[in-house]
Amino acid sequence: METIEESFRIYGFDPIVTPTVEYWDLLKGKYGEEAENKEIWRFQVPQSDKWYALKYDQTVPLVRYFVKHRPKLPFKRYVIDKTYRYDNPQRGRYREFWQADADIVGSPNPEADAEILNLMRYIYNKLGFTDAKIRLNDRRALEKVVELSGAKDKFREVTRIIDKWDKIGEDGVYSELSNLVGEKTAEKIVNLLKSDKIEEFYPESFWKIYDLLESKRGFEIDLKLARGFDYYTGMIYEVWIDEFNRSLGGGGRYDDLIKKIAGIDVPAVGGSIGVDPVIDVGIDLGIFNLSKKSYTEIAVIYIGNTFESAWRICNDLRYHGFRVYIDLLRRNFKKQIDYVSERGIRYLVIVGEKDLQNGEVTVQDRESKERINVKIGELADYLEKILRRR
Amino acid sequence: METIEESFRIYGFDPIVTPTVEYWDLLKGKYGEEAENKEIWRFQVPQSDKWYALKYDQTVPLVRYFVKHRPKLPFKRYVIDKTYRYDNPQRGRYREFWQADADIVGSPNPEADAEILNLMRYIYNKLGFTDAKIRLNDRRALEKVVELSGAKDKFREVTRIIDKWDKIGEDGVYSELSNLVGEKTAEKIVNLLKSDKIEEFYPESFWKIYDLLESKRGFEIDLKLARGFDYYTGMIYEVWIDEFNRSLGGGGRYDDLIKKIAGIDVPAVGGSIGVDPVIDVGIDLGIFNLSKKSYTEIAVIYIGNTFESAWRICNDLRYHGFRVYIDLLRRNFKKQIDYVSERGIRYLVIVGEKDLQNGEVTVQDRESKERINVKIGELADYLEKILRRR
Repeated sequence: METIEESFRIYGFDPIVTPTVEYWDLLKGKYGEEAENKEIWRFQVPQSDKWYALKYDQTVPLVRYFVKHRPKLPFKRYVIDKTYRYDNPQRGRYREFWQADADIVGSPNPEADAEILNLMRYIYNKLGFTDAKIRLNDRRALEKVVELSGAKDKFREVTRIIDKWDKIGEDGVYSELSNLVGEKTAEKIVNLLKSDKIEEFYPESFWKIYDLLESKRGFEIDLKLARGFDYYTGMIYEVWIDEFNRSLGGGGRYDDLIKKIAGIDVPAVGGSIGVDPVIDVGIDLGIFNLSKKSYTEIAVIYIGNTFESAWRICNDLRYHGFRVYIDLLRRNFKKQIDYVSERGIRYLVIVGEKDLQNGEVTVQDRESKERINVKIGELADYLEKILRRR
Repeated sequence: METIEESFRIYGFDPIVTPTVEYWDLLKGKYGEEAENKEIWRFQVPQSDKWYALKYDQTVPLVRYFVKHRPKLPFKRYVIDKTYRYDNPQRGRYREFWQADADIVGSPNPEADAEILNLMRYIYNKLGFTDAKIRLNDRRALEKVVELSGAKDKFREVTRIIDKWDKIGEDGVYSELSNLVGEKTAEKIVNLLKSDKIEEFYPESFWKIYDLLESKRGFEIDLKLARGFDYYTGMIYEVWIDEFNRSLGGGGRYDDLIKKIAGIDVPAVGGSIGVDPVIDVGIDLGIFNLSKKSYTEIAVIYIGNTFESAWRICNDLRYHGFRVYIDLLRRNFKKQIDYVSERGIRYLVIVGEKDLQNGEVTVQDRESKERINVKIGELADYLEKILRRR
């Protein structure tokens, strides 16, 4: 999350906080029937007649924030927060999960789309997902395909079916489309989606976005990408990890949503990072190192009757900004060391009676096994040197 | 929040995340009748018969985490998260507010209490509240007072009345106590609380905590501090700002709570920082500088037909780790500058057509008004020097 947050800042986004609890009226009608009936937490409390609901995504609360505060445009903000879905909890599906969203409100230009895409490539690379690909598409190209096939009036339903391509495959999509628009039209759509000459379906402003990508590597134009949400109007993307056939995040342009919610005609584009899939997949791929269990860098260990000196040394190091642990259970040397190993704290400052008489302590690096005697007055400087040099 | 979080780490605490939604059964009976009837968000959703509730403090969810994972002792963790109270929203009272809690589970020793107190002093100083005092007391001293006055069997009720001293004053406390235990006993209690010789009421281990404080400055032993929650068993404290007669946080030792919740006999001590009062009071005191509106450090400004060069320069600076804004609305120079001033972005990298022909840009510091021409190839190094040197 720290990597994500710093990346957002590097791309010129600032944080906002939005509420967990919203009035149900705000969320109603924004996410489709299935979400409303099955997935949204909505409720009344004994103290009131009003209906409330828990945040279902970061976008609708953002719109409310925008409408309330009417900040200068472009409004570039990020939110890193939990969202809530009433789901059957299992690995990969959580009732509370983290989303990290960045949005640009107020720019209709391709450079805004490109900034979101560049940001996403930057973040996933930085996190270590250099093999994740970003599948790129445009709602306007899908519209073209559906129009050419003669099913324009069923665009929304057709898109929802195309969206399942990864799950049910070409045959599944063809069969569902046949039921909706007949075999002939279904065949046309599938053939168009698989066509070699898809370039012509995309509008000029899409290619302008493409031109502004920092690097084309890792991007893949994919006409079959549809994304379920109704509110996208232009560029859409999804970060995809082939090995697990799983999405790590996605987003796109939604120029009509704010108008729909608040009557204000202002374009917007944004993206969302699925923090939980990133963590799950990152662990499976060995990208994240779980051996580092603690932020604590140093443990001050006392032996014999040296607790009070150790306590002073510990607090002094803290005032120097080091992250320091000292045992609070008056345990013996071995048990202190066991605990420190368990938590993966690397450096030991061992305060022994003999060393103390010489005004010294022993510093030990648990990784390199190096041990060295250091004067207490020089301890902070010494640790500064070896810790910050890493 | 960043200052608070880094301070927690410096004192050897690691983060955990606990759920927003809990089963109502877990929260029931933990916070008293008034909280249950008025303040707790509890509800059913249409999808289920179960009763749920929103997190009311950070302590009960921590206990559930502890019981589920049974980590090695001492268990030192922090949580920075919102809690939820069904309150009438107004300045200083929010339905969703942030708490930053640090707790030590597993140590009965005074050094654990002292570590919490040292941490709190460290944080409030670091935040700029050097005048905030930490009022310090011990439940066992209050017990002694109540026992000496002969009202031992009404300890809980008496404590609740003493807790209102700051709001209703000595006369109010005397009058409420009179109703509860009679005038004579009430007078005894009030006199004991105001006594000059309160030292003798405190147990030895309290003085041991006091001895282990990094510095006594800013601490004030106050026998009248009671703190409302029932679950405290030893040391209690409250961070107090006289000017506003307002608490910025508090905590204490709660050795029986985990037993009460989960049947496991394990001592604990902790503290909570009220992030919202800290922000409110910090703004009123002028401690927090609100003029810094953005994390963004640099704006790349384009003039004339230089957008594409500016875009490349912008992305290059981002890859160097700078936080950079570039206008996404194709606005003219003046409007770009207006926006940048509004957001308080300090450094400008101005990309003009003439400069570009010489492979240069102009760097301007909006505070010092200094302007300098820099070769594009040397730009990142130059900015590194002037930004990181601050």
